[in-house]
Amino acid sequence: MTVRVGVIGVGMIGKDHIRRLTTVLAGAAVTAVTDVNLDEAKRVADGIAGAQAYSTGQDLINAGDVDAVLVCSWGPTHEEYVLASIEAGKPVFCEKPLATSQEACRRIIDAEVAFGRRLVQVGYMRRYDAAYRALKAVVDSGDIGAPLMMHATHRNPSVPGHYTREMAITDTAVHDIDLTRWMFGEEIVAATVLKPRRNSNGGELEDPLLLIFETSSGALVDVETNVNIRYGYDIRGEVVGENGTVALRDSGPITVRLNNSQSSRVPEDWRERFIAAYDVEFQEWIDGVRDGGTYGPSSWDGYAAAAVSDAAVEALHSGQRITVDLGEKPALYS
Amino acid sequence: MTVRVGVIGVGMIGKDHIRRLTTVLAGAAVTAVTDVNLDEAKRVADGIAGAQAYSTGQDLINAGDVDAVLVCSWGPTHEEYVLASIEAGKPVFCEKPLATSQEACRRIIDAEVAFGRRLVQVGYMRRYDAAYRALKAVVDSGDIGAPLMMHATHRNPSVPGHYTREMAITDTAVHDIDLTRWMFGEEIVAATVLKPRRNSNGGELEDPLLLIFETSSGALVDVETNVNIRYGYDIRGEVVGENGTVALRDSGPITVRLNNSQSSRVPEDWRERFIAAYDVEFQEWIDGVRDGGTYGPSSWDGYAAAAVSDAAVEALHSGQRITVDLGEKPALYS
Amino acid sequence: MTVRVGVIGVGMIGKDHIRRLTTVLAGAAVTAVTDVNLDEAKRVADGIAGAQAYSTGQDLINAGDVDAVLVCSWGPTHEEYVLASIEAGKPVFCEKPLATSQEACRRIIDAEVAFGRRLVQVGYMRRYDAAYRALKAVVDSGDIGAPLMMHATHRNPSVPGHYTREMAITDTAVHDIDLTRWMFGEEIVAATVLKPRRNSNGGELEDPLLLIFETSSGALVDVETNVNIRYGYDIRGEVVGENGTVALRDSGPITVRLNNSQSSRVPEDWRERFIAAYDVEFQEWIDGVRDGGTYGPSSWDGYAAAAVSDAAVEALHSGQRITVDLGEKPALYS
Amino acid sequence: MTVRVGVIGVGMIGKDHIRRLTTVLAGAAVTAVTDVNLDEAKRVADGIAGAQAYSTGQDLINAGDVDAVLVCSWGPTHEEYVLASIEAGKPVFCEKPLATSQEACRRIIDAEVAFGRRLVQVGYMRRYDAAYRALKAVVDSGDIGAPLMMHATHRNPSVPGHYTREMAITDTAVHDIDLTRWMFGEEIVAATVLKPRRNSNGGELEDPLLLIFETSSGALVDVETNVNIRYGYDIRGEVVGENGTVALRDSGPITVRLNNSQSSRVPEDWRERFIAAYDVEFQEWIDGVRDGGTYGPSSWDGYAAAAVSDAAVEALHSGQRITVDLGEKPALYS
Repeated sequence: MTVRVGVIGVGMIGKDHIRRLTTVLAGAAVTAVTDVNLDEAKRVADGIAGAQAYSTGQDLINAGDVDAVLVCSWGPTHEEYVLASIEAGKPVFCEKPLATSQEACRRIIDAEVAFGRRLVQVGYMRRYDAAYRALKAVVDSGDIGAPLMMHATHRNPSVPGHYTREMAITDTAVHDIDLTRWMFGEEIVAATVLKPRRNSNGGELEDPLLLIFETSSGALVDVETNVNIRYGYDIRGEVVGENGTVALRDSGPITVRLNNSQSSRVPEDWRERFIAAYDVEFQEWIDGVRDGGTYGPSSWDGYAAAAVSDAAVEALHSGQRITVDLGEKPALYS
Repeated sequence: MTVRVGVIGVGMIGKDHIRRLTTVLAGAAVTAVTDVNLDEAKRVADGIAGAQAYSTGQDLINAGDVDAVLVCSWGPTHEEYVLASIEAGKPVFCEKPLATSQEACRRIIDAEVAFGRRLVQVGYMRRYDAAYRALKAVVDSGDIGAPLMMHATHRNPSVPGHYTREMAITDTAVHDIDLTRWMFGEEIVAATVLKPRRNSNGGELEDPLLLIFETSSGALVDVETNVNIRYGYDIRGEVVGENGTVALRDSGPITVRLNNSQSSRVPEDWRERFIAAYDVEFQEWIDGVRDGGTYGPSSWDGYAAAAVSDAAVEALHSGQRITVDLGEKPALYS
Repeated sequence: MTVRVGVIGVGMIGKDHIRRLTTVLAGAAVTAVTDVNLDEAKRVADGIAGAQAYSTGQDLINAGDVDAVLVCSWGPTHEEYVLASIEAGKPVFCEKPLATSQEACRRIIDAEVAFGRRLVQVGYMRRYDAAYRALKAVVDSGDIGAPLMMHATHRNPSVPGHYTREMAITDTAVHDIDLTRWMFGEEIVAATVLKPRRNSNGGELEDPLLLIFETSSGALVDVETNVNIRYGYDIRGEVVGENGTVALRDSGPITVRLNNSQSSRVPEDWRERFIAAYDVEFQEWIDGVRDGGTYGPSSWDGYAAAAVSDAAVEALHSGQRITVDLGEKPALYS
Repeated sequence: MTVRVGVIGVGMIGKDHIRRLTTVLAGAAVTAVTDVNLDEAKRVADGIAGAQAYSTGQDLINAGDVDAVLVCSWGPTHEEYVLASIEAGKPVFCEKPLATSQEACRRIIDAEVAFGRRLVQVGYMRRYDAAYRALKAVVDSGDIGAPLMMHATHRNPSVPGHYTREMAITDTAVHDIDLTRWMFGEEIVAATVLKPRRNSNGGELEDPLLLIFETSSGALVDVETNVNIRYGYDIRGEVVGENGTVALRDSGPITVRLNNSQSSRVPEDWRERFIAAYDVEFQEWIDGVRDGGTYGPSSWDGYAAAAVSDAAVEALHSGQRITVDLGEKPALYS
């Protein structure tokens, strides 16, 4: 059975996922597309055998040949499309953020709980990265003892001009927030943001930052966000347990020896680093849809990431440690 | 357009490729299967939507809903099925070996040349490994200067009881033979086999071996085959240029620190090491078939690997340096 | 010219330095020893050709055949011996701490300033470690741009029963404090101490800790102290600049491949990790004494380390960020 | 007790060892020097407190204040000075080669055997390198099983104009020859030399080479000599056992991340790579002399290296596998 996917939003991300669904992965077809720019949606539909363009996301969601929905549109529209998908009883994959406020996330959770079955998956792709999975397997094995700390770095060579200091949290560190919750199997209960000397590459931008997250068991996670560090896109992490540690290894499949140095490549950007993780993420989503289940990051995960992000932004603004209270977690998500 | 594949031979390898074509890759369907064990072929066909079992390879090759043929049967049958595919004008992917003698390979080459277009691809998957590709990109860039040597190791933790000393060449080193030809873009012109002290893990087996290949430009390639070295499946290689070198890095995505050591994992077997390369190999093959082309290792590559293998086996038996003469290469393969 | 050294304190550290001065390094002789345990001092003196035991540190310092003094006695006695050495106009190497209070350190500084020439060196040996020196050379080269952050870990497999939570700062992190000041060429102006989940290996001990130091230019340094992490003694550090980073590499001169892993050794303790640094430290001290100069960590460095330690202890107790005010730095130390 | 050393030959190597003995190591003094250039010997003696220049090596050897002799003169003079030292009953450290022919080496062995005690040490410093010692410790532990092969590379960025093809063996690979004998604890019984495509950096020089040595137990050792490979001085080695391997790790104490790469330094030359090994070599020699023993590479080791070198040169010239017959080993050397 081929899973027929309708794609809302055909910008850069949407087009990349369409490429993935039609030319990389097994078991999926793109049968419907829509976009705020309808002409663009039509152009994209023309390039996919068997696909047609729809005027609205609502029409696309309700189309008979759409089994599942992929939301890649502008963040403020996510809530509407995810809620409509739930109402239609169709699985929906929503790129981050799930919604632009905690309240909106809560409304999605309420709707999904009322529906009685998980339909929503949020696009936190690091959980599908082979290295992070290997790291988590060691943590879960108990070999290093209880995890007490994690050190992480999240480095970008540069960011576009519209990047604001809050985006270091809401766009950049939000991946580390989800990763932390997943790695420790616990909620984050407080956030603090420390401000090192500024990188002059970033002009007036408050960059880098050192974020400190506390989990419910008391583990501390420090995350360096650093978005103007020219040398490359570098994601690293080490979980510190009672008896040992486990860390991501430096990437790069080859070593070059030249000019008195031996070197291996650092990725240029997130595409190079995580392209395989996106493929795994979507293959697992498609397989789940076909088999009637949704297993990836949930509405609750999207909500928790939003809540911790909000706390960290407040911590950035206030210089204070800000606590996070998620309220009770519905049974659907445990 | 979906490429409809007929699979000849549904043993372990055949089943793995069927899994790959139906659940991992995009753009393919398995519509036909056959096997020397017809009952098994029927069982496999029953598990694939839209597939049917055929009594003979010939029938499968000629079936109207078979666009391309995948040969995974016993080696001695390869020639027949590849020739039949060429006669039917259908692209055919043949697992190694292309055929069991140089003469048989030559017959395939003659048939393909007579047909006038490449149809045959041979299953040398290392060319699709990301690390080898990165390594070749550096060699081809000229950054390290002309390549003069390559050091390679090909290690297995153990081999089955029927493994003979010749198989160290025909089954094991044959991958290094193809890799060498591809990496240097040259033919191998001579082979020598040296015999180190035996590994007692292998009983009476002449193992390990140190193979020396010479390319047409005079580059030397030494390959350690070592098939009872308990610790893991370890494939390594370094190309030595005039000004520098490039080498495969040790694999393993994470580092564990425990018990006074920091360690990373060595793969257990070839599946773990090369699974991604198989996926890339078949996706590129499918994409090529859809677009009307065949770009991977050719009949000529299969023939050359066989010829060098034969020379190396003779070198193993005689203790002498054995030269290889491939004859003229048809224009189709340049 | 041989530098004749008098050693005050012949406990484990003192004996190790005597071994170093007499059997490893060039240009030194041990001519005098003393200890609170006079019998032990005599036993040690008997084992060194040309050495004699003295009843008091004062007598040893004033002995005619003592060119320079090495203080390895109990911390509370350091001030007295260092001051006496200054009064005698003799170079003195004092193991850390320089003294047990900031006031005492200040008295030493005053005496040395009054004397008019540097005589005192404090035993911060990391500045002599080849890896740290290579790291600092890159920072100083400007290649990575201005240094903005440093991440450090200071891990021990275990600590003795009398180890208190304050010792994580005064005994353990004090090395990182000195290292930070040296690496950045700046003073530390504030300290904060964060408390992760406790390591159950350490019983009731508040361990690990995450210390945050701020330098005068605003750089942030985070230091994980972790003294019950069974797997080994592991010192790591990465300086983060505007354009790149430089980090200590994992140590270990060899790689072992065995049992599906490739591994290298983590040192067992500080002796294994820093033995070469101690040798360099003392060779450079002896060479300096012979040539009439003292170049290593100064009284000011000892004082600053004490002041930052005190602030960090207060931060540990209070949970607050504590600022450090060193007062004016005498010209002698710039 | 200070060991008083007389140094024959004060060229670059001799001067470096004088520096080492007088300013780096413990327990030695240089009391006598001589050189074919007597003026130079006098200049050097003037710079060392307590040293005097002698007109001849013979006079120096017989001087009353010379406890041990260090021979750093031109190779053809080694035999004479070593024999004279034996006659004088004084320990003698002779830089490689021990002598310029197997017969000359044999005469030294005969003299030493007649004297009845080991006096001669030959300057093969790799045995004192920390990494090689760690590697040998693993081999000797039996953890990887019986050693079956070793792969080695010996790379130099460039060589002086007078470097001949034979020197790739007699000057360069001779270190690998001694290393092999020491690592396996066995004699080398045959040598073969293979010739890869030439490195154009080396002009007409036959470079690189691939040397194959066979030990008495049948182990195979392949050594790449490569003396124009611009990128650095790179010494690597891996011993392959029945169950695992042990290898030198890439050197370099730090990792720099810059410009899309992470890199560590490759040494520029043998001084940078082996300076610490020379220090250990001489400290152990001095300690041995003081205690009345000689423990390093012996006359027999010097003779065996010469014999294997000669065989390898013959193999280079003839293209044949050349066997080595050392004759019986005197009991003094077992």
